[in-house]
Amino acid sequence: VTIVAHDPSRAARAAARTLAAASSEARNAALAAIAAAVEAASGEIAAANARDLEGAAGERPAIVDRLTLTPERIAGLAAGVRAVAALPDPIGEVLMRRTRPDGLRITKLRVPLGVVAVVYEARPNVTTDAAALTLKAGNACILRGSRLAAHTNRALVDVTREAVAAAGLPADAVQELVADHAALREFVSHPDAADVVIPRGGEALKHFLLEHSRVPVLAAAGGNNHVFVDAAADPAKAVAIAVNAKVQRPGVCNAAETLLVHRDAAALGEAICAALREAGVELAEGEQADATEFLDLKMAVREVGSLDEALEHIARHGTGHSEAIVTEDAEAAARFVNEVDAAAVYVNASTRFTDGGEFGMGAEIGISTNRLHARGPVGLEELTTTKYVVRGDGHIRR
Amino acid sequence: VTIVAHDPSRAARAAARTLAAASSEARNAALAAIAAAVEAASGEIAAANARDLEGAAGERPAIVDRLTLTPERIAGLAAGVRAVAALPDPIGEVLMRRTRPDGLRITKLRVPLGVVAVVYEARPNVTTDAAALTLKAGNACILRGSRLAAHTNRALVDVTREAVAAAGLPADAVQELVADHAALREFVSHPDAADVVIPRGGEALKHFLLEHSRVPVLAAAGGNNHVFVDAAADPAKAVAIAVNAKVQRPGVCNAAETLLVHRDAAALGEAICAALREAGVELAEGEQADATEFLDLKMAVREVGSLDEALEHIARHGTGHSEAIVTEDAEAAARFVNEVDAAAVYVNASTRFTDGGEFGMGAEIGISTNRLHARGPVGLEELTTTKYVVRGDGHIRR
Repeated sequence: VTIVAHDPSRAARAAARTLAAASSEARNAALAAIAAAVEAASGEIAAANARDLEGAAGERPAIVDRLTLTPERIAGLAAGVRAVAALPDPIGEVLMRRTRPDGLRITKLRVPLGVVAVVYEARPNVTTDAAALTLKAGNACILRGSRLAAHTNRALVDVTREAVAAAGLPADAVQELVADHAALREFVSHPDAADVVIPRGGEALKHFLLEHSRVPVLAAAGGNNHVFVDAAADPAKAVAIAVNAKVQRPGVCNAAETLLVHRDAAALGEAICAALREAGVELAEGEQADATEFLDLKMAVREVGSLDEALEHIARHGTGHSEAIVTEDAEAAARFVNEVDAAAVYVNASTRFTDGGEFGMGAEIGISTNRLHARGPVGLEELTTTKYVVRGDGHIRR
Repeated sequence: VTIVAHDPSRAARAAARTLAAASSEARNAALAAIAAAVEAASGEIAAANARDLEGAAGERPAIVDRLTLTPERIAGLAAGVRAVAALPDPIGEVLMRRTRPDGLRITKLRVPLGVVAVVYEARPNVTTDAAALTLKAGNACILRGSRLAAHTNRALVDVTREAVAAAGLPADAVQELVADHAALREFVSHPDAADVVIPRGGEALKHFLLEHSRVPVLAAAGGNNHVFVDAAADPAKAVAIAVNAKVQRPGVCNAAETLLVHRDAAALGEAICAALREAGVELAEGEQADATEFLDLKMAVREVGSLDEALEHIARHGTGHSEAIVTEDAEAAARFVNEVDAAAVYVNASTRFTDGGEFGMGAEIGISTNRLHARGPVGLEELTTTKYVVRGDGHIRR
């Protein structure tokens, strides 16, 4: 167990109190300072990254690629922070305003959530992305990256903290949690360690947190997503959507894992299967395939006798993430939209759109399939909570 | 451990699926049927209640009183259900509507939360109140009442289930959980037992759930609330608010526990203390008093040198529930509202207003000091989640 030299939760909470009272301008200035500081420290960041890359010599090329920060990518980190700064400020938004019969004035305001923990893999861009999103929404953050990226993350966190302090906000708003697996488990076992923990990374990391965390986890617990090709599907749309949902990026949680084909569209189903095979997809059938998240160029295929059977199949095997119907029948579409229980339900569009950027939220820190608080992409609004402000003139309750 | 004869979570989930697709009219018809059935079964309910009252012979008068259902109170249960039926339907509300540059149409809709568990003490009215609120918002509920009220609750649940079925919705939308303490602990240890669990009752019950539940708990974890009398307080308002916040109902979570008085308002502080003593309040000072939730006619009193000191005291000892300032100074009020971190912050009004009915939400099932999902009174909107509905015309992600 790595001994954490200080208590990041306590430091983050103290900073969060200052952040919560900071103006929009002050928070945006801190983000601008971070972006400039990352550019100015490009050389140091690259040097730290080079040390991590030495240590990662034996890793898979995909992992090494993600870990690598070129000068262009460092410039991209700064650009990402500036893009977040440019988003509308969610804080202070009035969600409800009401005057009671006795004259009591009630408003419900959007306020910062508090302390946001982010746990991620060897992608250094998450360090600055997560810091920018959480600070923009007035929160402090606790960042726990991969040991593979330790030097890079340390350099980025140092640069970020200095920039935040130089902009007049508390450096402790950005905390690094240096913790191995056991120490991370210990950290999230305390309900007060943070207000929420967000995993960014693979399935194993998510399941680890969902199993062990007593801090609420915002995550997509699974993505066993279906594309249902209805009897009234447009053939060209059906082929395009099924192929896109599976092939465009098969390893992510909004990719489709199962193709359901209405019996009356069997010929279209054959055409879709041919297109999928041509795109390199291996097709699978049977009970086991129904419940498998392949996250790969593999897809389950199943014929269903009716819309009801498709709905039943999705209710049993879906994970409440992203579900699509392809149909020109408005009634079938309406039933699918109404009856499928998922974060995002699609009519004649690919499941791959479940994404903060694609939904026009500007940026996201992850996707949630929780039913509480945030369901779907987790953007700036989802990093807030609310506060009732009640103004009277000596009002007392009778 | 009481053996539960069936799996209430599974039965509730199946019913919730039907409920989620039911129309507003169908849900309101079920509530109307429940109200009528409660009235029609008034005699049976009273007989069941008489059996419970026999068993409660040795209990405190307050407990016996809460348990007792007179004919008037039974009529009140029916009226309560009709009042919930008359509230606006939260389901289907469009929270966001956006067309993306590529023509993809995105809406974010309010949909039912799913399965709501309610754990409560020997107050039979919670059985029908909770069933009405959860059904109105399209949810199934799992009700676990007190053993003291077992016969009454069973009668009310039976009547409710029959009425729901007669109205064409699944009886299993209302589940009774017969479980002692150990069985309840086992029940909430399963993350999938319900989507949320809401305690209605005393502090011990809340803390039990907060400690043991792996189902998210919506509750007020504490109510160590403060009334801060600023240097610029209006004397009459200060006396009225401090007395009301403490005395009007001292045993509830929105009652005030500490009076903070600005040094420059010391004379006013004395007058308030005199008024509190006259109202039967015992005053306490010192570190221990600062952190005590008396829930009784006792109140801590502390002098502070400044607004900053008051804010610091509240940040250290407050539980994020309801905090009040009495002041005519707009700047002090603005700082208090901005810097105090609580579900409800008051200017010149009593903390006792933190209540769904008082806030104009129509009805509530409890108060939450969570930062996620619901902060403040838990009404119909807080018993919902959201769903993104995305409509395209063959849209695929590039």
